[in-house]
Amino acid sequence: MIKRVDVRYLKDPESCGLKDPVFIEGLPGIGHVGKLVADHLVNELGAEKVVEIYSHHFPPQVMVLEDGTIRIPKNEIYAWKSNGTSPDLLILVGDFQSISNEGHFELVNAYIEIAKRFGVKRIYTLGGYGVGRLVEEPYVVGASNSKEIVEEMGKFGVKFEPGEPGGGIIGAAGLLLGVAGLEKIEAVCLMGVTSGYMVDPKSAKAVLEILSKILGLKVSVEALEKRAKEMEKIIAQIKEMQELAVQQWKSDEDLRYFR
Amino acid sequence: MIKRVDVRYLKDPESCGLKDPVFIEGLPGIGHVGKLVADHLVNELGAEKVVEIYSHHFPPQVMVLEDGTIRIPKNEIYAWKSNGTSPDLLILVGDFQSISNEGHFELVNAYIEIAKRFGVKRIYTLGGYGVGRLVEEPYVVGASNSKEIVEEMGKFGVKFEPGEPGGGIIGAAGLLLGVAGLEKIEAVCLMGVTSGYMVDPKSAKAVLEILSKILGLKVSVEALEKRAKEMEKIIAQIKEMQELAVQQWKSDEDLRYFR
Amino acid sequence: MIKRVDVRYLKDPESCGLKDPVFIEGLPGIGHVGKLVADHLVNELGAEKVVEIYSHHFPPQVMVLEDGTIRIPKNEIYAWKSNGTSPDLLILVGDFQSISNEGHFELVNAYIEIAKRFGVKRIYTLGGYGVGRLVEEPYVVGASNSKEIVEEMGKFGVKFEPGEPGGGIIGAAGLLLGVAGLEKIEAVCLMGVTSGYMVDPKSAKAVLEILSKILGLKVSVEALEKRAKEMEKIIAQIKEMQELAVQQWKSDEDLRYFR
Amino acid sequence: MIKRVDVRYLKDPESCGLKDPVFIEGLPGIGHVGKLVADHLVNELGAEKVVEIYSHHFPPQVMVLEDGTIRIPKNEIYAWKSNGTSPDLLILVGDFQSISNEGHFELVNAYIEIAKRFGVKRIYTLGGYGVGRLVEEPYVVGASNSKEIVEEMGKFGVKFEPGEPGGGIIGAAGLLLGVAGLEKIEAVCLMGVTSGYMVDPKSAKAVLEILSKILGLKVSVEALEKRAKEMEKIIAQIKEMQELAVQQWKSDEDLRYFR
Repeated sequence: MIKRVDVRYLKDPESCGLKDPVFIEGLPGIGHVGKLVADHLVNELGAEKVVEIYSHHFPPQVMVLEDGTIRIPKNEIYAWKSNGTSPDLLILVGDFQSISNEGHFELVNAYIEIAKRFGVKRIYTLGGYGVGRLVEEPYVVGASNSKEIVEEMGKFGVKFEPGEPGGGIIGAAGLLLGVAGLEKIEAVCLMGVTSGYMVDPKSAKAVLEILSKILGLKVSVEALEKRAKEMEKIIAQIKEMQELAVQQWKSDEDLRYFR
Repeated sequence: MIKRVDVRYLKDPESCGLKDPVFIEGLPGIGHVGKLVADHLVNELGAEKVVEIYSHHFPPQVMVLEDGTIRIPKNEIYAWKSNGTSPDLLILVGDFQSISNEGHFELVNAYIEIAKRFGVKRIYTLGGYGVGRLVEEPYVVGASNSKEIVEEMGKFGVKFEPGEPGGGIIGAAGLLLGVAGLEKIEAVCLMGVTSGYMVDPKSAKAVLEILSKILGLKVSVEALEKRAKEMEKIIAQIKEMQELAVQQWKSDEDLRYFR
Repeated sequence: MIKRVDVRYLKDPESCGLKDPVFIEGLPGIGHVGKLVADHLVNELGAEKVVEIYSHHFPPQVMVLEDGTIRIPKNEIYAWKSNGTSPDLLILVGDFQSISNEGHFELVNAYIEIAKRFGVKRIYTLGGYGVGRLVEEPYVVGASNSKEIVEEMGKFGVKFEPGEPGGGIIGAAGLLLGVAGLEKIEAVCLMGVTSGYMVDPKSAKAVLEILSKILGLKVSVEALEKRAKEMEKIIAQIKEMQELAVQQWKSDEDLRYFR
Repeated sequence: MIKRVDVRYLKDPESCGLKDPVFIEGLPGIGHVGKLVADHLVNELGAEKVVEIYSHHFPPQVMVLEDGTIRIPKNEIYAWKSNGTSPDLLILVGDFQSISNEGHFELVNAYIEIAKRFGVKRIYTLGGYGVGRLVEEPYVVGASNSKEIVEEMGKFGVKFEPGEPGGGIIGAAGLLLGVAGLEKIEAVCLMGVTSGYMVDPKSAKAVLEILSKILGLKVSVEALEKRAKEMEKIIAQIKEMQELAVQQWKSDEDLRYFR
């Protein structure tokens, strides 16, 4: 049986031995930027899964894996004990965000409840900021629930553009900032600028680099770099195809007296 | 954690010292007429925030402000103690109305519950009445849950047009009248006639003027007048652009033998 | 405050003095056939309102009446004590049906609960059966939760066409039959055949006549006849306009070498 | 009254005398493949109805049967006591799946709860895998919540294609695997490959044959074969009509210089 919002602790928060952990959220969203970064962190750090979250707000389906087994949609929280140069981490990853409006509130309530049980004092939510055109040199835009953090983040190169994103920050990455604010937990959203048209590992790399700098994390960006290079090849191919299509269309146009 | 409908009193109703306050609702809606008037009143009167309302029925997002900080969608109620010539006021403003049908009922229930705790005997809901064409001289149309108020309002110049608006009054401005009626609280909706195409400070000014007359309020309309003038410039520009576009289109048309 | 489904008894069921009343449902639906009949019955019989039902499943709005006052969407149940030749009646009328799928179930549960408190043994639900073309001589199609009633109704001229309506009976008129069946209450739906394009008092008259025969009711059909005649004039006008439009279109077509 | 999810046991699970029954789900879905197989099994085996499930998540309507009586949407579970060569069976059939996303979770929770009360250790969910083109020789694709079952099923000819279906398995057939997994109940989904365009008894026959082999069931496939043959005639007719339409269109095209 799955409850409406079904939080399952695989390990007792106390027994995880984390000290004032920083909470990082990277669920699917624009350009999958947040998810790419958070999944990468979990893999690179070898973080340990400590919470699973199932919910009626995820799509009513299962995914089929390569080996013929299935996977039910879920969110997961991984814990990582630092060796000292950086803070301990709790990393929220998952297959989906809520597919209903109300579900976002119920799930974010659950994330905050978990964060509080682990003694989290600061939350980083990760996402993409879709600008509707290809971005050659992605940078990172921020928003926070605290004026002090806006200043602090600025020193690390996070850009704060007045009133941007204009449409607000939708879903868990945004709502977490808001609900954290009500609970007096500092929170900042780091958004990699991206086209918004496709998965964007290059933008994810920009977010990862700035996040690593902020947290004093030492993680290889190689895997993301490799995916980014593959992506660039694909984009180059798409561009070429588009140009060919435009040429074709133009020569067709010359011949097209009526449809 | 945010409850489904989460009413947070910043001040105890009794300690606000309001006597039979009049409740004014001005949430976003057609032409943002109601919101413009209510926000203006809060600012001009320097009213004090006494209640915050969060809800799962607002959009699951945060807005980003000019300074890089965020704001979670909410409704707010401000209290204003009169100096005697007018009644004390409770003013409901906010970023959003409910985005679900059921949510409207749950939120209006909450508004009425708050109004009762403050001893409210009369409610004014403010809105726009969209007529689908530019309105040169906006006037104010009314509807009430009491025949007596219809007559009383008529004396102040509020128009009551049989069965208008034909589609009813949708959302908080309408539902508040209905639920107030079930609780024996007098309520009237004042709607500024507006095109419905854009934010309409001119229509808001018409509503503010009639409301001030009704309540014996002395508030400057300058800020609204200024916004109305800016808006008229924008409308003039739009009209000019439309005319140019029509001319352009006509000359194109002359050349267009087939698509 | 309005509860999700908010049933308010204006009179105690016992004090109404009804004996084994027959329950008649006539809410808005296809061609407004059921609503026309039920409203007509309430008016002609001078039935007394005994229950009001408010709900979060109705549209979040109020309607504005001719005198400038408002009306919140509701359902109502009227009681009528027979003088002996026909059974006592409970008549369910209203402004709306549920606008959500789940709401239909919650409201029908409430209707059945009320029917049981009044000792109802049989339910007639009234509706339209839209056939997508103008119907010159409307007749009445039935469906029941009991094989015996199918036979009984057949004697009164109700037609039972195998598996018709093919799409089932949607909303309260259908669901009431189903839920009544689970509670061992006999129920039948009488559907006036109608185009489905507009309000159809002629179809309503056909339903009223057959229902009156079944129940031994003596009610004038004059009001419905009058509305039906007005409607026929309107339909004649529409037909004429359509013919003119077709002629116009044809002559245009002759001139139309390109768009 | 119908509860949100309303499970009604017609017979006490213990009194059914089933030993470690296998649970088979065949609700409506792609090509109605699962429903065809499960309905067929219930009929051929003469299984006994032991549970009825009503729900607010089914469409708010009733279906009209051939004899003028109605049927309210429901799911049903039939029990079948084997004579020894195969396991005992519980077969879930029904008119509809949930029409809301959340409803799928609530109903699947109920199915699992029932399965547990009957001591079910393994679940087979049946469905269609729509490939978007006519399938001459349908075969059966599988997915399971256990690596061992993937191997076991492979021996019976069930195909496991890496990551297929790419879109996952949506609705009860998929979600049951997922929730069963959380409850440590083995479960596999058998999907007959089908066009996805129409009811496909031929694909159902393929699923039935492989399921019979797996379970050691002896059931005639005649009824499905007959329906499959009728279907093939209809498909042949459709193909012919399409070819005629294409020819007609081509000759029209020759005459069509402009629209």
